[in-house]
Order: sequence, then structure tokens, then C-alpha cells
Amino acid sequence: MAGNEIEKLVKQIAKLPSLGTRSARRIVLHLLKKKETSLLPLIEALNEVATNIQTCEICGNFDTVSPCSVCSSTTRDSKILCVVQDVADLWAMERVSQFKGKYHVLGGVLSALEGVVPEDLNIEPLLKRIASEGVQEVVLALPATVDGQITAHYLSSRLKDFNVKITTLAQGIPMGAELDYMDEGTLQLALNSRKAL
Amino acid sequence: MAGNEIEKLVKQIAKLPSLGTRSARRIVLHLLKKKETSLLPLIEALNEVATNIQTCEICGNFDTVSPCSVCSSTTRDSKILCVVQDVADLWAMERVSQFKGKYHVLGGVLSALEGVVPEDLNIEPLLKRIASEGVQEVVLALPATVDGQITAHYLSSRLKDFNVKITTLAQGIPMGAELDYMDEGTLQLALNSRKAL
Repeated sequence: MAGNEIEKLVKQIAKLPSLGTRSARRIVLHLLKKKETSLLPLIEALNEVATNIQTCEICGNFDTVSPCSVCSSTTRDSKILCVVQDVADLWAMERVSQFKGKYHVLGGVLSALEGVVPEDLNIEPLLKRIASEGVQEVVLALPATVDGQITAHYLSSRLKDFNVKITTLAQGIPMGAELDYMDEGTLQLALNSRKAL
Repeated sequence: MAGNEIEKLVKQIAKLPSLGTRSARRIVLHLLKKKETSLLPLIEALNEVATNIQTCEICGNFDTVSPCSVCSSTTRDSKILCVVQDVADLWAMERVSQFKGKYHVLGGVLSALEGVVPEDLNIEPLLKRIASEGVQEVVLALPATVDGQITAHYLSSRLKDFNVKITTLAQGIPMGAELDYMDEGTLQLALNSRKAL
């Protein structure tokens, strides 16, 4: 492959999530062929993000300002705080555009396997926020995995001395799913949490 | 999702081959989280490619110089010219590092469906090269698709008045393949082109 520069770019792109060397090569070729419409606009967009985007000092979201637009919003309800694992999950919640409270990004979940302990997560700032911002409800929107649920349990034990209601997202059968294709754990859980019609 | 800059970058990345909005979002988050080790080096690598890489005026390859390092090589055999559809295929041939001739990038194949006619391809420069560079063999390394084979036939008819040997890549069963999993077309072709052991 000609050009050390091309090799270097392929390697950089291959390191990105969900990409490998083969797709990185296809992307680099595409960029080289469409320099004006693809390569240069991509560089510009990356530069803008690198220059302008920062981490919100309050919740951990990414935005052009800190505090971020969610934290500084006057129309959102500071009394409800949604705790998420990651900014990706905050974005997912925002796409639903139904939640009108504020967020707190933990930066991960506890994990014995990966050696993630409470001190690695954004927990102390969360406790301070709950104490100082008059929070009344904490929604633990953590992943429905073992680690996510352990983290939720740990957080609820840390929060029991605060005068806040602690809730989690409902678990059950996702919309549009065929029972036949659901795993047994989900079916059992949905059965145990069944509701009156 | 906070920040117009982030949205713009997600859109740019989602347009790249083999990526969509979901993977673009994951990539942007990854870049934002690893600004020093991922975002800034990526921008640098893209900038270097944008500034330094150009299309070779002779063969159509991408390189820092034009004529490219393959075309200007004195150790490669100018008498054998390998015609490929795309720079990706040139790179694939180079990874085998067995071919020691030179290349010519067509820039596509003829296609009735997509309206690609001979004038859209890099054919006239190919004929000029064959006439002027003392080429003795033209290897048509075109895809084994209907369009690729039509293009190979068209090229060989255009080349019949030149005093050159025209060859194509062998077709048959790929290495490591189970007969059971091969399509009938390939099996039939492999049987018809069978060789004495």
C-alpha cells in the first residue's frame, strides 16, 4: 500500500469501535476519492468537536458549554435526577424526549471482572448533588446486566440515608418482541412483574 | 443530543462506507472520551493524507508523489501491466507482493445498470500506455462479476490490434473452501477448467 500517511490513517481508523483494518481501508479509499465532499468536511467537523466540546462539570455530559444545556436549563425539573452509565445512554434517553429531569453520568458500572470499584465512578459528586440540589427522586437508568444491577443496588444502599425516592426503569418484554424469541430470564421476570389490565 | 457540532460530526461519519448513525454515535463518543489518544491523532492523520496524498497521473494509484512509487520504480517490470478496477484492488494485489509489474486503475467497470460507459473509465490512457511503454502482457485483474467480465471482454476487443498478450486471473475454487458450500456456477467453472495433476 503506497504512502506511509495512508497506512497511518488506516491504523488510526481501524482502532475506532466497530471498525477493523478492512473497513478502515474502505473508508480511507472513500475519503481519498471524495476529498472535497467527504475528507475535508470530516476534518472540519472533527476540528470543531475537538475545539468546542467539553465535559459538563456537573453531570458529565458533552456539550459546547459547561454546565451543559441540560444542567443549565430552567425548564427542566431539578428534583428528578436520572443516573446513567454513560453519555451514550443519556443521548438515548434524550432521543425519547419524555424525561424532563436532569442527568448524572456515572462513567461506568461496578465490575468485579474489570476491577471497577466505587471510587472509579462518579459517585461522590452524585451524593453531593442530591444533598445540595433538593433532589426528590433518583431514577437509576442502569443497564439490565449483572454489573448494572449490582451498581443499582450499591447506589440505593448509599442513598438510603438521603430523603429521596429511588426508582429504576421497568424490566420486561420489549415492544414488538415475539415471546418465542425471548430468553427465559426475561420471560420469568415479566411473568413475576405481571400487571393487572 | 447536546451540541450541534456533535450532530454534524455524527452525520459526517455515518456517511462513510460500512457505517450508520448508530456506529457513528459510538465512534464520536469514543473520540470525545479519548481526545488526546484518539481524536487529535485522527485529525492529524487525516490532515496529513489531505495535504500529501495525490492521484498518480500515470496509473491512478494514490501516493505522496506523482508518478507514484510503483510507476517510478526501476526494479518493476514495465512490460507487464495489471489492469484493476479500483485502488483497493491494487492494494490487494500489492499485499500478495508477488506481482512485479505495473498497474493501471480503470476507475470502475462497465455497467448497463449504473450507466457506466467506456468513456467514463480510464481506458484511453491505458491504450496510450500500452502503445508507448512497450507493454507485452496485460493482466486483466477485474472482478469475477458479470460487469467485470463484460469489461474484460470489451478491453480485450479494444486491445486485439495491439501486439500484446492478454491474460486474466484464474477462476475456480478459492483456497480452503468446502465444495459443499460453493455455488454451482463456481463448481461448474472449476470442473470445466480442470487441470491435469
